[in-house]
Amino acid sequence: MDDSQKPDLMDKIVSLCKRRGFVFQSSEIYGGLRSAYDYGPMGAELKRNLMSEWWRFMVHSREDVVGIDASIIMRPEVWQSSGHLANFSDPLVDCKVCGERFRADKAPRKAEGEDAPITLGDKGRAKAAQEKLTEAGVKLQRDGSTLTGAKAGAAGYVCPNCGSPFMSDERRFNLMFRTSLGPVDPIGDVVDIVRKAMAEGADDKALRAKVEGALAASSVYLRPETAQAMFVQFLNVQQSLSLKVPFGIAQMGKSFRNEVTVEHFIFRSCEFEQMECEYFVPPGEGPKYLDYWMNERMKWWRSIGIKADNLRFRKHGDDELAHYSDGCYDVEYKFPWGWDELEGIASRTDYDLKAHAAGSGKKLTYFDPEAVDPETGKPGRHYVPHVVEPAAGATRGVLAALCDAYDEEPGDADGKGARTVLRLHPRLSPIKVGVLPLVKKDGMPEVARKVVEAFFGAGVNAKYDEQHAIGRRYARHDEVGTPYCLTVDTQTLQDETVTIRYRDDRRQERIKIADAVDTVRKALTETP
Amino acid sequence: MDDSQKPDLMDKIVSLCKRRGFVFQSSEIYGGLRSAYDYGPMGAELKRNLMSEWWRFMVHSREDVVGIDASIIMRPEVWQSSGHLANFSDPLVDCKVCGERFRADKAPRKAEGEDAPITLGDKGRAKAAQEKLTEAGVKLQRDGSTLTGAKAGAAGYVCPNCGSPFMSDERRFNLMFRTSLGPVDPIGDVVDIVRKAMAEGADDKALRAKVEGALAASSVYLRPETAQAMFVQFLNVQQSLSLKVPFGIAQMGKSFRNEVTVEHFIFRSCEFEQMECEYFVPPGEGPKYLDYWMNERMKWWRSIGIKADNLRFRKHGDDELAHYSDGCYDVEYKFPWGWDELEGIASRTDYDLKAHAAGSGKKLTYFDPEAVDPETGKPGRHYVPHVVEPAAGATRGVLAALCDAYDEEPGDADGKGARTVLRLHPRLSPIKVGVLPLVKKDGMPEVARKVVEAFFGAGVNAKYDEQHAIGRRYARHDEVGTPYCLTVDTQTLQDETVTIRYRDDRRQERIKIADAVDTVRKALTETP
Repeated sequence: MDDSQKPDLMDKIVSLCKRRGFVFQSSEIYGGLRSAYDYGPMGAELKRNLMSEWWRFMVHSREDVVGIDASIIMRPEVWQSSGHLANFSDPLVDCKVCGERFRADKAPRKAEGEDAPITLGDKGRAKAAQEKLTEAGVKLQRDGSTLTGAKAGAAGYVCPNCGSPFMSDERRFNLMFRTSLGPVDPIGDVVDIVRKAMAEGADDKALRAKVEGALAASSVYLRPETAQAMFVQFLNVQQSLSLKVPFGIAQMGKSFRNEVTVEHFIFRSCEFEQMECEYFVPPGEGPKYLDYWMNERMKWWRSIGIKADNLRFRKHGDDELAHYSDGCYDVEYKFPWGWDELEGIASRTDYDLKAHAAGSGKKLTYFDPEAVDPETGKPGRHYVPHVVEPAAGATRGVLAALCDAYDEEPGDADGKGARTVLRLHPRLSPIKVGVLPLVKKDGMPEVARKVVEAFFGAGVNAKYDEQHAIGRRYARHDEVGTPYCLTVDTQTLQDETVTIRYRDDRRQERIKIADAVDTVRKALTETP
Repeated sequence: MDDSQKPDLMDKIVSLCKRRGFVFQSSEIYGGLRSAYDYGPMGAELKRNLMSEWWRFMVHSREDVVGIDASIIMRPEVWQSSGHLANFSDPLVDCKVCGERFRADKAPRKAEGEDAPITLGDKGRAKAAQEKLTEAGVKLQRDGSTLTGAKAGAAGYVCPNCGSPFMSDERRFNLMFRTSLGPVDPIGDVVDIVRKAMAEGADDKALRAKVEGALAASSVYLRPETAQAMFVQFLNVQQSLSLKVPFGIAQMGKSFRNEVTVEHFIFRSCEFEQMECEYFVPPGEGPKYLDYWMNERMKWWRSIGIKADNLRFRKHGDDELAHYSDGCYDVEYKFPWGWDELEGIASRTDYDLKAHAAGSGKKLTYFDPEAVDPETGKPGRHYVPHVVEPAAGATRGVLAALCDAYDEEPGDADGKGARTVLRLHPRLSPIKVGVLPLVKKDGMPEVARKVVEAFFGAGVNAKYDEQHAIGRRYARHDEVGTPYCLTVDTQTLQDETVTIRYRDDRRQERIKIADAVDTVRKALTETP
């Protein structure tokens, strides 16, 4: 497809995902959950295949990277040391007119000048009229749609819902999901604490501090990234396998961020999956390995079939680089809405291990008996390894794979032969082989079931499919990206051959049933 | 090992798990997290292999089961309909003497009789003395270690920590982890609510109700089981793939339960993994498919190498059967502490789909055009499918596999040749092949690296390993269950052969390098 078709590409993909069982809204029958998605039968396989390819490339095909699978719930100290508790937050305010809560840093600016007239939207007018609002000593005066005499909000923005400038104080809203571990009853406890503190005459600030303090003991957080576990378990992993620097620890899995702004379908959601590797190197070698991993990771994105033209690097500017980082690049994909991030590859120096060493009081160092100590000049060197981190989004990878693979063929002048086809790399395809009896009689289903069982035994995901006319079945398999369809027909009953149909060009050939598994396996492994 | 060695088997397994990189305590450098575990390099592979085997058996080797991968955070209505919000809870109380919080239903009974003397433990005595406690109008009187005149607690139990019978009211403690989705600030909100309500003179009960109500809008829960998503997405899955009853939906993944009592290492933890299938059948056919799935599932547990003697079924008694269920069996494993549950296989009638239909207002029915409507006698029948659920614990499966595989060989009379070996099924083994240069010179590492790369290309998890003497390397691979080791030695350099060493009997043979991948692959697939 050319770029002129892009604007509605996302709508088409969302629709295909629902219709063909790739992605559903979470809890849909109950009205749906904001920003969480369920992967249906096709989506679950696609995501699983993509993540398996990452694991194979990062862990199973290298001698210097090992995998871990850490818990989602981690101790709060982890997030204290990493800086997430203090800094992983957005500024939130409540509008005192309409009650809307929003991000102050994304709110529209109000008109310039302290005494500029305020324009309330419908919701704001209705609410202000209804409540005869008085705020900060200034009475709201109705004057058509314009309220005058209102004192300007200090922060200079207005409510995106109703236009009012009357705001609560800004609160830092941490993006981590908090929950309580252990036999605690946060609500009951909070009620008790507030009652006692009020009886003692505590003010709002003191009240909040007391509540925070009391909850801290039982508060735990859902990880907002998988990366920290690799630092926290650095020593356990290194020692249990006697690993030598440079080496890496890799992890894939769910992370959770309470994003106020969610967008672009599964691209930015509150529950998502990551594929991250922390690669530990000697001090000073970060920049070298940053280059190395940029090269490796780009190779991988291409290896799963993403078109080279739709991939690029973007170097982080000095203003977006963390203070400890000495280099960071994003791998970007050309999504229908523009270039956006798939993966970040960062040289993080020794920041993370040092932060966790300081937080935990444990010595997170590495001893290299062969290296020379730069201070004494003698063999044997203790040091804190530096880190290069290739951190990819698995959920985003799935979306990129879908966008990249989606194609429509117009057919002939009358539209005959038009089809939608997902040109997924065969290793990503949810179903590798559709096995189809031409008709549901004459013993064809029985033969087809024998064919499909040969694939079951070989560990190749094949599905038997006898519903609807053969053309409709091919179309369905094209839409979910099945690369090969085997059809059992009349000739099969005579000579034990089937047709193999190739998704990409609809070409058909006859092959022997006895060769079917090998033919498909060969095609699967030989696709570059 | 015989049973007399069992008592310390768990200690040995926990120690091996830490030493060899199977399982670490979560957030260990920060003092560890109660009841969550991180899977190290060996454990992550073992768990992954076990879960892949389940997926292959349940989804990829059948034409009637499809997989999904739903979100962990789900809407509260899901748990309202399923009954988890109301009933998935334990009764908690606080001891008013020492402050301990515990499960009332697991607490020790007090001595019989309203006026029986109360024996406080050390902690209780100290606390009571220090605070000069008065409770419910009854003054605690110190009298050696016995306090008399105390009014008996109504519920008849005493504090397991200090022996006191003075308790707060029982609260139902729900085992689901609650968190908040969206831009809300639960603590700030609760403080506001409590302040306002108190100003209006609300009592404790009213306060709690207000807080609960206010939080309900943003409260979401981490799923305590993977099963409900299959009911909630029943229609989307069935329609997107035009599935015909009987069919199943399968899911593996994390679940979370805020267990007050955690025990037996990874057996009962707050964060764990499940492998569940909901199999939908026509009304009345539940019992038939219950039999079918019992048979299938037992076959699977044996197929991953668990000894038949260590597996059994346990039928649920009438007292433990849910009111809607017409039959349930546990698959139990003979753990070191006794028989305990690995999997539950339940016939659940139409309870779940009906509950979600009632809760959501959606019609969760199936239309079978070929079946006869029992009321009209005509073809075409709408009905709510019944469900048979084989629900297995993945984390428990990992522990069972470890217990079952752990073995110690005493060696000869002098203990020579003694070893610890994990006799894991090769398909579960974290590493399939260790590739070892006999020594780190004479070009052996280079040859060994070529051998290992052939395995990378073939998708077989192999690891190059050159550290320490060859005997120590074999011992290390025995301990993590590597079934095959290939050793490059002097003869290799002459004739391009390597030795293959078999874990279970330490037998060694020479094979050609060119045949290595095929030899291992054949051994892997041919192990029953």
